[in-house]
Amino acid sequence: MSDIASVIAQADKGLDKSLERLFDLLAIPSISTDPAYKSDCRRAGQWLVDELNGIGFTAELRDTPGHPMVVAHSNGPAGNPPHVLFYGHYDVQPVDPLSEWKTPPFEPGISGSADGKRIITGRGAADDKGQLMTFVEACRAFRAAGLELPCRVTILFEGEEESGSPSLIPFLKANAAELKADCALVCDTNMWDGDTPAISTGLRGLVGEEITIIAADRDLHSGYFGGAAANPLHILSTILAGLHDETGRVTLDGFYDGVEETPAEVLEMWEGLGKTAEGFLGDIGLSIPSGEKGRSVLELTWARPTAEVNGIIGGYTGEGFKTVIAARASAKVSFRLVGKQDPDSIRAAFRAYVRSKVPNDCSVEFKEHGGSPAIQLPFDSPLLGTARQALSDEWPNSAVMIGMGGSIPVVGDFQSLLGMESLLIGFGLADDRIHSPNEKYSLTSFHKGIRSWIRIMTALAQAK
Amino acid sequence: MSDIASVIAQADKGLDKSLERLFDLLAIPSISTDPAYKSDCRRAGQWLVDELNGIGFTAELRDTPGHPMVVAHSNGPAGNPPHVLFYGHYDVQPVDPLSEWKTPPFEPGISGSADGKRIITGRGAADDKGQLMTFVEACRAFRAAGLELPCRVTILFEGEEESGSPSLIPFLKANAAELKADCALVCDTNMWDGDTPAISTGLRGLVGEEITIIAADRDLHSGYFGGAAANPLHILSTILAGLHDETGRVTLDGFYDGVEETPAEVLEMWEGLGKTAEGFLGDIGLSIPSGEKGRSVLELTWARPTAEVNGIIGGYTGEGFKTVIAARASAKVSFRLVGKQDPDSIRAAFRAYVRSKVPNDCSVEFKEHGGSPAIQLPFDSPLLGTARQALSDEWPNSAVMIGMGGSIPVVGDFQSLLGMESLLIGFGLADDRIHSPNEKYSLTSFHKGIRSWIRIMTALAQAK
Repeated sequence: MSDIASVIAQADKGLDKSLERLFDLLAIPSISTDPAYKSDCRRAGQWLVDELNGIGFTAELRDTPGHPMVVAHSNGPAGNPPHVLFYGHYDVQPVDPLSEWKTPPFEPGISGSADGKRIITGRGAADDKGQLMTFVEACRAFRAAGLELPCRVTILFEGEEESGSPSLIPFLKANAAELKADCALVCDTNMWDGDTPAISTGLRGLVGEEITIIAADRDLHSGYFGGAAANPLHILSTILAGLHDETGRVTLDGFYDGVEETPAEVLEMWEGLGKTAEGFLGDIGLSIPSGEKGRSVLELTWARPTAEVNGIIGGYTGEGFKTVIAARASAKVSFRLVGKQDPDSIRAAFRAYVRSKVPNDCSVEFKEHGGSPAIQLPFDSPLLGTARQALSDEWPNSAVMIGMGGSIPVVGDFQSLLGMESLLIGFGLADDRIHSPNEKYSLTSFHKGIRSWIRIMTALAQAK
Repeated sequence: MSDIASVIAQADKGLDKSLERLFDLLAIPSISTDPAYKSDCRRAGQWLVDELNGIGFTAELRDTPGHPMVVAHSNGPAGNPPHVLFYGHYDVQPVDPLSEWKTPPFEPGISGSADGKRIITGRGAADDKGQLMTFVEACRAFRAAGLELPCRVTILFEGEEESGSPSLIPFLKANAAELKADCALVCDTNMWDGDTPAISTGLRGLVGEEITIIAADRDLHSGYFGGAAANPLHILSTILAGLHDETGRVTLDGFYDGVEETPAEVLEMWEGLGKTAEGFLGDIGLSIPSGEKGRSVLELTWARPTAEVNGIIGGYTGEGFKTVIAARASAKVSFRLVGKQDPDSIRAAFRAYVRSKVPNDCSVEFKEHGGSPAIQLPFDSPLLGTARQALSDEWPNSAVMIGMGGSIPVVGDFQSLLGMESLLIGFGLADDRIHSPNEKYSLTSFHKGIRSWIRIMTALAQAK
């Protein structure tokens, strides 16, 4: 039996135990955005440290001003093996509305999905605990087969990815020498479909903003004051409604500076993937593409910038009715960036626009929620070719290169702070309901994800 | 000592005990809009029944499908005395945000206000428990002086005024013969200022609507779907922003049907009251009149219709940030009506407008929250003259006739179902913070309010 076959055999044999360990991790409610779960975040990090120390890594929890980092090292074989930095995040999204979960979010399990496939259920199953554990379990399989890891491996797991990663940049700067590798492996993305692995070569950037419009110095009775007093909900609605014009374009001054049209051959390649608007939107109960007119859903989500309102609240929102004019109203707004759009300029344009819409006797407060530029990896990178082949060896279909609508700011930080490209390889599926109730991860993704990393690490070592 | 002087002397002597009783009632958290306080609402009603029975009324609690009614009768002197129906409500508004209350909302007390006046604090102090107790304590003073009430008095206290009064119309219809009187006395309005009593001769109507926009069948990740999937917060913002044009007029089709310009002489009378935009809005931390351009703040709030957003919620509104595209978003919207605007037509126009703005693959749900037309009392009613003189006898300044921006649907119901006009006399002040944290009622309003009702009942009996 070849080395790779014996390691894969260990992964197959150990799958039930791998799942038990994943469930242990999924049971920890490490919601980074809510201060009430601070100790749970630390507990999830410590759990990973203990696991990694148990399979031959030198691992520790490193404190930050927020949630701690997990850093682990394994030297790999003698000589000069390739050095990879594997990145994942152990924190998860909030779970509201809790009432919509069919099984409690932090009581993970296996169940049958509608299409007869077996799925792992629970918050974080796909984003990102299930994904990062594919790599941890791949490393374990090498040890179980009595082998060294084929690469020198550094692991970095953060606990603030779902809350804007405030500690990441200072941590990367302070530990640059320790963390720099030949390339990063970032496991927080999707496959193209259940049979087709994908490497994401483009990532949209993100700017997050929270605005609060403040009008009167108290909540008012709409009978006494309605018609004469400024209503912050009207001001906020006008601001948000004005973010897009009738063609779906974002109206901010200079918003499209640095946005280039996608080359025709790339659009053709995406066209060939056969993803229609009906198929893409039909999965979520919709049918009509929103946003800019005249562009495919893949171009809209992979290669075009957006403005989205992510949350809004103001006035009386409980049972029944209250004829109140609120004193204040708030919204959370995010922008997805592409090409060379500059996060700071977008934020400044948004704030200037908002200020221009606020009457002189009212005021606005801004709160920044992270910002990162878009990323585009070169299509001709040798690393990319090696990883595509290894993935194609494992899965029914060959690996494809795709765009990616979400933002993974760490990829930009690895590039700018550590001078290192990232391979974005993940095994999530579009219907994993990440960030929503009833998040799941395919059992096949978990199993073949482990096997994929065994193949990729082996291939990277052989290619060097 | 004349009868009236001896009754007033009893009211003065009993003031401390009157306050103790008011505090007992204010301590009951009878929030009608929240089902959690159902038994407290009943308890407040029963407390009033017991008090009224204790001062010679025949009082009972009458069940409804919602909160119970208090009905009480006192025949007055022999002969054919005038018959008045006194109306108030024992339910109160919710108290959120609780953290902004300086004293707990249901622990009433007396304190000193910023301007050195003594105030009664607590939820319901002004709206409407403090007001209705001025009448109850006036009746008690007649008994304490050993006298019959000068009028035949029927009392109706409802417990659903702050939640749209769903049981009121059926109750009035079912008990019309029992409740019909020569006129109604409705005590839920304000004085012009602390020295100047007022009778409200015009009341705006109200239409309440709640809309929920539903887009995808789940919350979505804004990275994967942003730019292609409909965002209900965008749709809602566009709908709400489109309710007004740039001049502040409401845009609904036919909205101004039945709205007449206020006569020049009435506008002049209001002008004479000396209420500037700076004064009216300065009290609440604002300075620029919102709404229709070119009209005074009194005209805007007394004689012009409005559309107001009273609440809005959707997406992630907790701590931190969540890059979600929500599945649904909701708003509560109300319209203040004047003249002959028809509530049903306004509701229909609003719903048609909203439907026209919802994309075909999304949907909207509507929920009705009450509706009532505007009321205008004739300026030359003899009742009005009698009551104005009685009020002018009690207070430093003569009573004025004013408009009223808020809605008191019961006044329209008394007119249409019982064929009876209402005298709107109340002792609230503009800074009473009704519907807001730190609601208060002036101690002078309470004391002189009691004395005012003694004078009014006496004058009505003498005028007959």
